[in-house]
Amino acid sequence: MQTDRGRFFEDFSVGESIVHPTPRTLHQGDATLYMALYGSRFALQADSFARALGYPQAPLDDLLVFHTVFGKSVPDISRNAVANLGYAEGRFLKPVFPGTTLRAHSEVLGLRENSNGKTGIVWIRTTGTDDHGDEVLSYVRWVMVNKRDPDKPCVHEPVVPQLQSVVPADALKAPAATDFSRFDTRDSGSELCWEDYQPGDKIDHVDGMTIEEAEHMIATRLYQNTARVHFDQYAQGQGYHGRRLAYGGHTISIGRAMSFNGLANAFCLLALNSGQHVAGVFAGDTVYCWSQIIEKAPIIGRNDCAAIRLRLIATKNVPCRTYPYQRADGTYAPEVVLDFDYWALMPRRAG
Amino acid sequence: MQTDRGRFFEDFSVGESIVHPTPRTLHQGDATLYMALYGSRFALQADSFARALGYPQAPLDDLLVFHTVFGKSVPDISRNAVANLGYAEGRFLKPVFPGTTLRAHSEVLGLRENSNGKTGIVWIRTTGTDDHGDEVLSYVRWVMVNKRDPDKPCVHEPVVPQLQSVVPADALKAPAATDFSRFDTRDSGSELCWEDYQPGDKIDHVDGMTIEEAEHMIATRLYQNTARVHFDQYAQGQGYHGRRLAYGGHTISIGRAMSFNGLANAFCLLALNSGQHVAGVFAGDTVYCWSQIIEKAPIIGRNDCAAIRLRLIATKNVPCRTYPYQRADGTYAPEVVLDFDYWALMPRRAG
Amino acid sequence: MQTDRGRFFEDFSVGESIVHPTPRTLHQGDATLYMALYGSRFALQADSFARALGYPQAPLDDLLVFHTVFGKSVPDISRNAVANLGYAEGRFLKPVFPGTTLRAHSEVLGLRENSNGKTGIVWIRTTGTDDHGDEVLSYVRWVMVNKRDPDKPCVHEPVVPQLQSVVPADALKAPAATDFSRFDTRDSGSELCWEDYQPGDKIDHVDGMTIEEAEHMIATRLYQNTARVHFDQYAQGQGYHGRRLAYGGHTISIGRAMSFNGLANAFCLLALNSGQHVAGVFAGDTVYCWSQIIEKAPIIGRNDCAAIRLRLIATKNVPCRTYPYQRADGTYAPEVVLDFDYWALMPRRAG
Repeated sequence: MQTDRGRFFEDFSVGESIVHPTPRTLHQGDATLYMALYGSRFALQADSFARALGYPQAPLDDLLVFHTVFGKSVPDISRNAVANLGYAEGRFLKPVFPGTTLRAHSEVLGLRENSNGKTGIVWIRTTGTDDHGDEVLSYVRWVMVNKRDPDKPCVHEPVVPQLQSVVPADALKAPAATDFSRFDTRDSGSELCWEDYQPGDKIDHVDGMTIEEAEHMIATRLYQNTARVHFDQYAQGQGYHGRRLAYGGHTISIGRAMSFNGLANAFCLLALNSGQHVAGVFAGDTVYCWSQIIEKAPIIGRNDCAAIRLRLIATKNVPCRTYPYQRADGTYAPEVVLDFDYWALMPRRAG
Repeated sequence: MQTDRGRFFEDFSVGESIVHPTPRTLHQGDATLYMALYGSRFALQADSFARALGYPQAPLDDLLVFHTVFGKSVPDISRNAVANLGYAEGRFLKPVFPGTTLRAHSEVLGLRENSNGKTGIVWIRTTGTDDHGDEVLSYVRWVMVNKRDPDKPCVHEPVVPQLQSVVPADALKAPAATDFSRFDTRDSGSELCWEDYQPGDKIDHVDGMTIEEAEHMIATRLYQNTARVHFDQYAQGQGYHGRRLAYGGHTISIGRAMSFNGLANAFCLLALNSGQHVAGVFAGDTVYCWSQIIEKAPIIGRNDCAAIRLRLIATKNVPCRTYPYQRADGTYAPEVVLDFDYWALMPRRAG
Repeated sequence: MQTDRGRFFEDFSVGESIVHPTPRTLHQGDATLYMALYGSRFALQADSFARALGYPQAPLDDLLVFHTVFGKSVPDISRNAVANLGYAEGRFLKPVFPGTTLRAHSEVLGLRENSNGKTGIVWIRTTGTDDHGDEVLSYVRWVMVNKRDPDKPCVHEPVVPQLQSVVPADALKAPAATDFSRFDTRDSGSELCWEDYQPGDKIDHVDGMTIEEAEHMIATRLYQNTARVHFDQYAQGQGYHGRRLAYGGHTISIGRAMSFNGLANAFCLLALNSGQHVAGVFAGDTVYCWSQIIEKAPIIGRNDCAAIRLRLIATKNVPCRTYPYQRADGTYAPEVVLDFDYWALMPRRAG
């Protein structure tokens, strides 16, 4: 009797739709554990703060929703993946509250065999839905997937999807039925509003967080992400790295939580423009990060809040006082592990 | 002033009833943390999936209930235990939902001194009850317990209880007010129903999970299990193993969670026929597992679901592709750590 | 663009009031995770037990509330602290239930530069409030804080506040609308009531708990305590200890949880008289503890319960069978890490 061992490159076809098991109900306990894993301090995750802004209660952290939807897709998409290469066209479409049961489905957008014949790249759009069937999140990612049979030429015609390099500002929407003119900057931890940041500004988030095996594994299981590379030291000990690789999303959440230092009022995510896991992160590594303001944009129909585009760079074992990023030739400095480009929502200054 | 240091072998008497402190309320947060510790993906733990089947909300994982009731019994029964030798006659009698306060009590079924005079075996039936006083779980275990005074001959007449080797199929009941004809095999992660499994089938569950000290200790404290051997490195460092032993139930839960790969629709436990912790598991060990179908049985009065009897074998540091189990002489292969025989419930194929 | 790096000694002034961001809603999931981190077994944290005594549901552990309020104060007060020197005049004023959003504010009570010119001591009273604005907790602590500019003489006149050495017994109040004559000592884990303890009694709490990096970091982030010294191995590896220091409150909670062995009915905290982190605790250390009864006092207007004053001593890597404490010259034995003096509430014997 054979256990499903996941799809190989040959098993995908462009246009194919995949419904991912199993549904997952997120509770307040998930919010608690997420907070304990990352130490996030954004005030929106406190009930009374959220209610004052028009939310019925505190929404779940956007990245907890992202990781949960991502996790649903792993057994079908990336169980046999070599690497998660990039993200694009991510949009956070609706706040998710404790008690919501999330489901996820994906569409195959593109396929291209690599020249070595052993692997191929699969482009996938994954969408998460809530109990009402409403889309809460949608994003594209592309992954390098092993072929089942490296010796057999590929049957797929190469299809490479056209993806937006940045989610356009006029597509961004603030959550419905909210009013951020009531945003209390004394409670939120910073007086700096949207008007106070300028494109080009760089912010060192100061803190450092050392990764433990128990922590990245607890996080990754919380997301029901089953990729073996994160959990099985016996197998990984015989592999390329010799040890378990932390889920890339773990680093995103660490960076986002530390970005509170300097961006306390960038309180929710609107869109994920692009993301790249530049290098692997392992237990024992200390993660630091910094952000740069890329651009600013109004939100149509809202003068209580606006959008800010940020590049979050995370490093390992090198503090970010000097803002490490790319070298002159466009390659990344060796300490950089994450390059994450996103739109966040910020309150505007009253009047 | 003396702190209670737990009972020794001399302190038990056959027929004695013991009410275990302290009550424990299980919440949705317990379900979350349990999921994050084991990565379980059974769909029944999602609210919307459970409601579609007639449950008022998602029940707690059966093994979370088991470990909680077990934990209650530890300070009275096995604080001075040398080893937990076996389980029998376990029955899961009623689903437990978040918000339930569990209590536990035990009855001493048997006692027998070991020939070395230093230890004895105690047979105990432990029962967990909910807020209504209804029994939710009952099982027998036997443990080797130290004598207080190894030089003094034992006062107990040996009493060895007669235990069923398997819970009989006609004693198994499906949860009341449920209808598994509505079981959605697209959401659950597998199309395989009760009809698709045959006695003798073997299933490799493929994944491996490496154990960390922080994880087995967080789990064991979650169950309020206070056995010193799991927590105190200073004392254990001077003992036989030289390190902390993981709670045996931690391995059961890891195996059960990984058995989703191949048994996704064996969604709840009905009975625990027998169980044996064949060898100790320690931080750094990677656990693998496989299952064999032992027998199948209908549930009286139900044609939407039926019972399947499974043997779950867990190993350490050896994958289960070759289904390691016992040698010709009936002893276990050295990598086997758990032999766990249980009845699970599965949906039947419609019509 | 500069991230806030916290206050230095020069930035404080006596009488100043500081409102700490960000609000924090505590849920049942926080109670679960707290239990899993420490293994606390006090029966009051079970809903049905608490309801029988007049509480609407189980209150959160007093120390979870303490750590949460403490954590709020860290970014403003002790981000650049060298050491947390002591506590006084702590009072637990109102039970806190899941769903409560806590806020915190502080007042600067005193300042004194140290003779080396590099650091100074800051005395702070921190108060936590609930959704009604009611005070739930208030305590004084003093910390040694770095000066920004060690070469510049200090502008502050030294002000050293007069603090009570012990919270007077007649200021202690039991929670409103409770009746502990219904306290069920079978459920609570001990028959010993207030009458059964006498000043001078010593209790060895027997258990030992080894600290893991993942555990003290998960706990400290749960409290949103951002002090770098707990999280950043890269920076700490170059510092005095060469490793991450566990948050002192982590040891308090371990000790309090283990004190269940012998003090099961000291079910809630009334006041914190004094506390001192005598030595640092690190991953790998095993914590033991013992308690001494210091005094007993009635609670005005109540004959169902009374106050007991306890000194909790925690050690590392030395069991507490011989009650290690201070040497003849008043200095602490080298294994002592915590000296914590508090008032707890206990039920009185009926009739």
